[in-house]
Amino acid sequence: MALVVIGGVAAGLSAAARARRIDAHLDIVVLEKGPVISYGACGLPYFVEGRVRDAEQLIVHTPEYFRKERNIEVRTGARVVAISHPRREVVLESGERLRYEHLVIATGARPDALGIAGARQPHVFTLHTLDDAERLRQFIREKQPRRALVIGAGYIGVEAADALRRNGLRVTVVERSQDALLRHDPLLTAAVRHQLEEHGVELRCGVSVTAIEPESAAGIPCDVVVLSAGFKPNVEIAAEAGVETGRSGAIRTDDRMETNLRGVYAAGDCAEVNHIVTGRPTYIPLGTTANKCGRVAGANAAGRRERFAGIVGTGIVGIFGKAFATTGFSLEQARAEGFSPVAARIEAHTRPKYYQGTMTTVELVADRATRRLVGGSVVGDDGAAGRINVIATALQARMTIDDFEQLDLAYSPPFSATWDPLLIAAQQLIKDL
Amino acid sequence: MALVVIGGVAAGLSAAARARRIDAHLDIVVLEKGPVISYGACGLPYFVEGRVRDAEQLIVHTPEYFRKERNIEVRTGARVVAISHPRREVVLESGERLRYEHLVIATGARPDALGIAGARQPHVFTLHTLDDAERLRQFIREKQPRRALVIGAGYIGVEAADALRRNGLRVTVVERSQDALLRHDPLLTAAVRHQLEEHGVELRCGVSVTAIEPESAAGIPCDVVVLSAGFKPNVEIAAEAGVETGRSGAIRTDDRMETNLRGVYAAGDCAEVNHIVTGRPTYIPLGTTANKCGRVAGANAAGRRERFAGIVGTGIVGIFGKAFATTGFSLEQARAEGFSPVAARIEAHTRPKYYQGTMTTVELVADRATRRLVGGSVVGDDGAAGRINVIATALQARMTIDDFEQLDLAYSPPFSATWDPLLIAAQQLIKDL
Repeated sequence: MALVVIGGVAAGLSAAARARRIDAHLDIVVLEKGPVISYGACGLPYFVEGRVRDAEQLIVHTPEYFRKERNIEVRTGARVVAISHPRREVVLESGERLRYEHLVIATGARPDALGIAGARQPHVFTLHTLDDAERLRQFIREKQPRRALVIGAGYIGVEAADALRRNGLRVTVVERSQDALLRHDPLLTAAVRHQLEEHGVELRCGVSVTAIEPESAAGIPCDVVVLSAGFKPNVEIAAEAGVETGRSGAIRTDDRMETNLRGVYAAGDCAEVNHIVTGRPTYIPLGTTANKCGRVAGANAAGRRERFAGIVGTGIVGIFGKAFATTGFSLEQARAEGFSPVAARIEAHTRPKYYQGTMTTVELVADRATRRLVGGSVVGDDGAAGRINVIATALQARMTIDDFEQLDLAYSPPFSATWDPLLIAAQQLIKDL
Repeated sequence: MALVVIGGVAAGLSAAARARRIDAHLDIVVLEKGPVISYGACGLPYFVEGRVRDAEQLIVHTPEYFRKERNIEVRTGARVVAISHPRREVVLESGERLRYEHLVIATGARPDALGIAGARQPHVFTLHTLDDAERLRQFIREKQPRRALVIGAGYIGVEAADALRRNGLRVTVVERSQDALLRHDPLLTAAVRHQLEEHGVELRCGVSVTAIEPESAAGIPCDVVVLSAGFKPNVEIAAEAGVETGRSGAIRTDDRMETNLRGVYAAGDCAEVNHIVTGRPTYIPLGTTANKCGRVAGANAAGRRERFAGIVGTGIVGIFGKAFATTGFSLEQARAEGFSPVAARIEAHTRPKYYQGTMTTVELVADRATRRLVGGSVVGDDGAAGRINVIATALQARMTIDDFEQLDLAYSPPFSATWDPLLIAAQQLIKDL
């Protein structure tokens, strides 16, 4: 086999598809340990909510599609148990061995159970695979639980809380740290808390769950538990084969997504990527990043020379219809990364008052020494995605706040305000610098 | 007087307010020839439509506000008829003379009547001042015209067509050139035409109107005419005083918004600005630009040293609820500017299908030699403003299409697709390059 890909979701399939586009004759096989491939994990909370009626809707492509349309062999239920790089072989659970010339490791991540006792009971769920989501939905339908506990206030945690609440459950979210959405930013966490409380969901920060009882956890009564406390990269097989991991525990690669083993690439939730703002490796497992670095890994595995510049840490989540979007670093995070940051947070209308604008909150963070933008957040129900993307683009371009302040943003009353909230925030930040 | 500002709308008031923030003791006087100041001209079509009920809603600040809150003297009905720079004086129509140390020329622009005969009849309107819009609305209410002709398919033309159609009129838009929205881009014009026709408005390109008859023009029957065929910068007084104008006919300035006369600045619809993509002066009169370069002119007039980097030519307009947004150059325009451009246009969903995404069209244009992005357009009813702003930010940062393709854009099902349409367009363009 010329190219073997371990993992058949975002990164693995992106790598395989890209390699095929570059080389029509390459032998490509994708090995997926699970029963399905190419599913949109980000859609799982909406399946639990009921908005997505059929789990099939979350499957983008089938193995048959890849076989027929792309001439890529995709095997499900094919668990790799070892990699022998000296022999250029992967070993399957069945004992079968497959030879590779190039290998892409896209083994993903698994929910981190944090060593919580009782995490394997039937009323405890994660939201990682289609099967997880189907089982949770079935449990809700059949057992009609009334009180839900969500452990972890990251993206999946708040989305699960939203979905469960919309199903009529009483929901409490507990979070070990003081921060929601994995961002050390007290005002953002306060905004998340406010939005959750407005919709009847309680958020308790600084609460560690050590054990889940049948009807409670951390003293909170609950009939169903969603465990969404972060991910652990699946690196064991790679590490045993001599693939180096970074400080985060995920696989370290160069900017071509190649590991320390020549011809072995890693991409997606099992791998680190470069953080463009710091220039250092980071581990932020997200589907968009997996797709992008999967493509680069696949291109290089097929003989191209492409590089993945990295990420800036952009994320967005909807909580009861309001968007919470972040990119780069908060003030506190930027300080921890060694910057001398200054932040400005403003509230402004998204459109002229006569055109039904709503209020949005924008925060920008810049480094005092270099005046470079290092982060930002946008909270609002209107245009938050577009605005965070503008900040993300500026971060990627290493723009200063002075250049950012003069951005030529589109204005017309149905779409924005004469002074876009982004520019008002930039003006404020320049005053404060 | 220390600082005199000629013009009391976007650029003039931005300059005055900024100067005041920098220097609390400066004498500042703003001279506005019209009866009102600080009105949102971009809102006029929505007043004609009826969505904005009261013209007062379009007035942001009154002279009293500036006097009381900002200690800025604003005089309405104060028409400047001459500037004597050797004496550092402006001369008012009344004969009064005002001394200045620094002068900001923000005289704006006027609708270009294109020498059309009959343009001063009572059924012919422009949409430039509050008074224009109030007279047009009164005419519609009282005379109940049934057939409207709009001359010019720029932003104001299509907005006026939308507003008149929503008032039940039969509307035809005629345009001298082959292009709508001032953009040489046949596919964009086709999309505008399609959207107009879907809502019962006819667009005829390549039609020059030389005379307006009482009941027709260019052979098209009409009871009311809106003349929206572009602007002429108001530069006469400045030019007579020795202020240089550029090739566009608007006032030329340096990047501090200073004219060739020391201490005399120009900003807004009377002035050129730098086009960041070409590095050459351009004339694109828009309120957002006026605000920004007004601020820079005011800062420099108050003793700071600030520069205005320029614009990238971003614009957006809503036509019957759909957004048409452009920035930088179309393929045809980029070629005319001396680039060797390649363009890719794609259609994609704005969200996953299971989350009610709509279709959007994205075009990106890059220069083949440098791989730099030089323009783009976005058409859709969903997120178009945010997407065009991402392209605009990339243009401002002189980003290559390769960097753009790897932008770390926000993804979550309620807000976007895993592969944002922008990134799909970038992938396509890279294939075509």
